[in-house]
Amino acid sequence: MKNTKVSSVGERALISILSEIFKAPDGREKGQEGILIGAGSDDCAVLDLKGEDCLVVTTDMLHRTTDFPEEMTPWQMGWMSAAVNLSDIAAMGAEPIGLVMAIGMPADTEIAFVEALAKGMQACAEFCGTTIIGGDLDTHAELTITGTALGRVKKDQLLLRRGARPGDLVCVTGYTGSAGAALEALQSRKPVSETVLNALFEPVPRTKEARMLAESGAVTSMMDTSDGLAMSLYDFSRQSRVGFRVRENALPILVEVRKFASNPDKLREFALYTGGDFELLITIDPQKIKKVQNICNLVVIGECTKYEAGIVLESPECNLITIEQRGYQQLKAEAVDRSS
Amino acid sequence: MKNTKVSSVGERALISILSEIFKAPDGREKGQEGILIGAGSDDCAVLDLKGEDCLVVTTDMLHRTTDFPEEMTPWQMGWMSAAVNLSDIAAMGAEPIGLVMAIGMPADTEIAFVEALAKGMQACAEFCGTTIIGGDLDTHAELTITGTALGRVKKDQLLLRRGARPGDLVCVTGYTGSAGAALEALQSRKPVSETVLNALFEPVPRTKEARMLAESGAVTSMMDTSDGLAMSLYDFSRQSRVGFRVRENALPILVEVRKFASNPDKLREFALYTGGDFELLITIDPQKIKKVQNICNLVVIGECTKYEAGIVLESPECNLITIEQRGYQQLKAEAVDRSS
Repeated sequence: MKNTKVSSVGERALISILSEIFKAPDGREKGQEGILIGAGSDDCAVLDLKGEDCLVVTTDMLHRTTDFPEEMTPWQMGWMSAAVNLSDIAAMGAEPIGLVMAIGMPADTEIAFVEALAKGMQACAEFCGTTIIGGDLDTHAELTITGTALGRVKKDQLLLRRGARPGDLVCVTGYTGSAGAALEALQSRKPVSETVLNALFEPVPRTKEARMLAESGAVTSMMDTSDGLAMSLYDFSRQSRVGFRVRENALPILVEVRKFASNPDKLREFALYTGGDFELLITIDPQKIKKVQNICNLVVIGECTKYEAGIVLESPECNLITIEQRGYQQLKAEAVDRSS
Repeated sequence: MKNTKVSSVGERALISILSEIFKAPDGREKGQEGILIGAGSDDCAVLDLKGEDCLVVTTDMLHRTTDFPEEMTPWQMGWMSAAVNLSDIAAMGAEPIGLVMAIGMPADTEIAFVEALAKGMQACAEFCGTTIIGGDLDTHAELTITGTALGRVKKDQLLLRRGARPGDLVCVTGYTGSAGAALEALQSRKPVSETVLNALFEPVPRTKEARMLAESGAVTSMMDTSDGLAMSLYDFSRQSRVGFRVRENALPILVEVRKFASNPDKLREFALYTGGDFELLITIDPQKIKKVQNICNLVVIGECTKYEAGIVLESPECNLITIEQRGYQQLKAEAVDRSS
């Protein structure tokens, strides 16, 4: 690996390399008891709090050039910095209990900008029933915000990426592809509604929905779709050892996004391969589907199959198409290893 | 404040502004119960875990241009990124229970560099009895590392910046001024020993010492000296409403640092006004000093006085000199408000 650049291996491969460094040779995490889920395998790390609860924790670094389109207001940048972390807390079925935010900014940043940023963070935290409890300020050439969120959940309600079984129903909250369409609209300077733009600029963590889903006892696994639906299905598949059959007709897509996509391929691109939607992807025991149907805006998009059946899309004409393993990835790999 | 730049108010003033946004009008933190210490007032935020324990959390953003001199190895950068956070956990008297590390790096970073970085982080975490439990990877123009550390401590052993009382003894662990001397040596290209350089490159979090001090029942307040001894005394003074009289002769300074300083003013500069030492600054009930004397390398440097007496240095000639409120500060203010 000597002289190999990180860009040539991609984010997920690099996570695997680092996770090994953070583990003992026997595969358990080094250093201490009490780690239920360590680095690299779920939306959050999970610590045993000894009693009936566990603590979940996640961190996410955002920065101006890659994460904040120039049309975003500072308030929205603050909102998003909190939201991406609170979405990971939701994905574990946990209740958020606090956020710390490290902010690096150029020395000539205006105070009013920082205040708006902080208000956006706090608004998102409060929307999710929590608050900003600490942070760090730093001068930095490029605006860089690293949020870390903490959550708490009863051990028997913790929802992981593993747990899905063949035969389970696959569901998503909200709509898919809206944030991707918004990004394309910005890049191609085409007009879209505020609803579509806000899917990108002000993603809503599904905190309440996640708690109700966790309490229902019907959910077998859960994660968020921040890197796109396809990427999430692959992450799920790897952890739960299941395949997926997704019905294209069932994908919940805003009418405006359907119209905005100039052709079916483009629409599929938005719905499967673009990130930023921050919805929940859930697998549900089919016997218990009634328990969750009234909880939130939840759509059944397909079902879990055997791992060997792969991850496929059933087109309206009932053709089976392999869903590709691609989407939003930091440190994009030149070639994605589809067998991993 | 409109159009005012962050560089003109300084880090501590900006923390005050943001802390207000993260608080309700009545002064309590918004959003939820269970926050014992919120944003802006101690080394860590503190959450009530409902049982006998509380959770402490801290975050720190480091980046190449300001925090990693070019002589540092990637392993040392990793060590330091973990150490700065673990030092804050120690400063609360807490036992670390996990770290998450967000790493932003240029796409052409070599894998070997990232591996060394990760090994340094893990080595520091293991030294402190914990491990890296999660993180985030990101492409970034400048190497940027945000660590977040979690710790746990019994409520009755939690040590805050408030709690010091007039008459308490003031102590520090280790030596003061070593990291500052190392930085000056690098900048002026003068040779110093590895001991001095490592004070800057591989700061040792005082995890074990902190736990023993917390268990002793003799400590009335504690914080770390990462921003320099003078800055720490001012932070302490504000939170505990005490003054300090520090005896210059009592300051623990390495012989090599004494020699390296070309004159007494320079030595005072190193000992009081340079950051990076990551030692513990402690106030102790004088009745209980025996309980802590054998715990660790602890030196009594002075005593707490009434707040109105200010923060003063007693020179070897018994002159009293006001210790200035300056040291390591991000977002350096042009004028520091000494009355705050």
